[in-house]
Amino acid sequence: MADDNKITLYDLQLSTGATISPFVWATKYAIAHKGLELDIVPGGFTGIMDRTGGKTERLPAIVDDGEWVLDSWLIAEHLDRKYPDRPVLIGDPGVKPLTQLVETWLWQQAISPWMTCFLKSYRDLSLPQDHAYVTESRERMFGRRIDEIIVGREDRLPAVPPKLELLRQVLREHKWLGGDAPNYADYRALSVFLFCASVADTPVLTDDDPLRDWIERGFDLHGGLGRHPGMHPIFGLKLREGDPEPFNKAAAAGGLVSRNTGPQSTAAETARLKGQPAG
Amino acid sequence: MADDNKITLYDLQLSTGATISPFVWATKYAIAHKGLELDIVPGGFTGIMDRTGGKTERLPAIVDDGEWVLDSWLIAEHLDRKYPDRPVLIGDPGVKPLTQLVETWLWQQAISPWMTCFLKSYRDLSLPQDHAYVTESRERMFGRRIDEIIVGREDRLPAVPPKLELLRQVLREHKWLGGDAPNYADYRALSVFLFCASVADTPVLTDDDPLRDWIERGFDLHGGLGRHPGMHPIFGLKLREGDPEPFNKAAAAGGLVSRNTGPQSTAAETARLKGQPAG
Repeated sequence: MADDNKITLYDLQLSTGATISPFVWATKYAIAHKGLELDIVPGGFTGIMDRTGGKTERLPAIVDDGEWVLDSWLIAEHLDRKYPDRPVLIGDPGVKPLTQLVETWLWQQAISPWMTCFLKSYRDLSLPQDHAYVTESRERMFGRRIDEIIVGREDRLPAVPPKLELLRQVLREHKWLGGDAPNYADYRALSVFLFCASVADTPVLTDDDPLRDWIERGFDLHGGLGRHPGMHPIFGLKLREGDPEPFNKAAAAGGLVSRNTGPQSTAAETARLKGQPAG
Repeated sequence: MADDNKITLYDLQLSTGATISPFVWATKYAIAHKGLELDIVPGGFTGIMDRTGGKTERLPAIVDDGEWVLDSWLIAEHLDRKYPDRPVLIGDPGVKPLTQLVETWLWQQAISPWMTCFLKSYRDLSLPQDHAYVTESRERMFGRRIDEIIVGREDRLPAVPPKLELLRQVLREHKWLGGDAPNYADYRALSVFLFCASVADTPVLTDDDPLRDWIERGFDLHGGLGRHPGMHPIFGLKLREGDPEPFNKAAAAGGLVSRNTGPQSTAAETARLKGQPAG
């Protein structure tokens, strides 16, 4: 165990001090999940090689009892291996492949469009010494100027909430992706919303979104780890005439998923299939 | 433990003897995974209440040492609880929520469109006494005649493979969804392809689909459980001029996902971000 119960984490921050990288967010939660304290080395996008003495170009990186560990997944696996008696992050070998599938899906649905909506805010909020790097690397990635990339975001923002229905559906049946308690899958998925809150200069989800309960509980975990004063409100999206329904209101009202516990539990559906009035 | 190492399973079959229900398929695999033998009670859609003595309208149902258990998830949980010393199906509370999310996604991408392509074959292959029930219940569900539902399937079939990329991506990095060995998540996902093979009168995936390796290994498991003689080939889809690429060939060729193990592992991407030639 770390002598002083502390893990040194090289952060990737904005000028607000809030973490921007979803991978660093997941790592902060993973360390806190293990009951370890965070010893943060602050900093932004530039100078990572200098800060880490040439150990890495990318963050997160941690130092645990003098041992450097790079890469968010490798760090989570290291923590489970080194601290097996503390709450587990990845409790079964199947959690990693499934989480990676779910995370990739969530990035496609949410981070991709949000990135095109918030890139100007992202650049403007970054540390002064990072402005040139963020601007140039992102403009090269998208092949357009940042001012052009964000154009039309008022149409793209309301298109995202309806695409998150799969996540709502599973969180209607389970308190966390980890079941009764959060695990590393929750932290990977929450990181998408933590990233968003670090840069969102306008809200992305409606006030009544059923995801709100899980997100707020997630931001509150580990002493309010997601409640950094540099974070922005992500609830409060106002829909315009003609915007799609943000979530499935019939499903939210209850009871689409049921388990077969005998004929009385399936009678209503049977009647529907047979075109009979439910008994 | 079951006295004779056997579990009685009420099957849901076609006239070929092949199981059609994805839920029954997952249950067969779950029982075999535990090293238990299947004692199959044959039958189709009609007469389930008679066959089960009024215990259930839906299948799967099992009888284990005289104990009835209904519902595919409840059966899997029962098997893990009753046979804890045998290979585990659901090794962590997080496997269930994540699997349910992945399964729902897979049903939306594949089962939904395939159902509209194979409903005539589905009905024609069902047991003679089931024809009327299948026809009436499905026509009521879709609001159209079966002959009309399948119209245009030659256009819908090639649209499915490109939508399965998330599954390919995770199975490029992991042997099974369960990691090094299959778990209940694999069985739920394989059941989508097992259902398909039970009714597909024309192939749905190209011969060179990278998913083929996992699907073939899955059908071979537990003594070739998925190789019932009533199953149809699902590989061999022929693409027409203008059909979309069935899978991401650049990704299949390798190496999109990499872990940060130090500056040399990220140098190429850094150069790309900076617009420099890779070193």
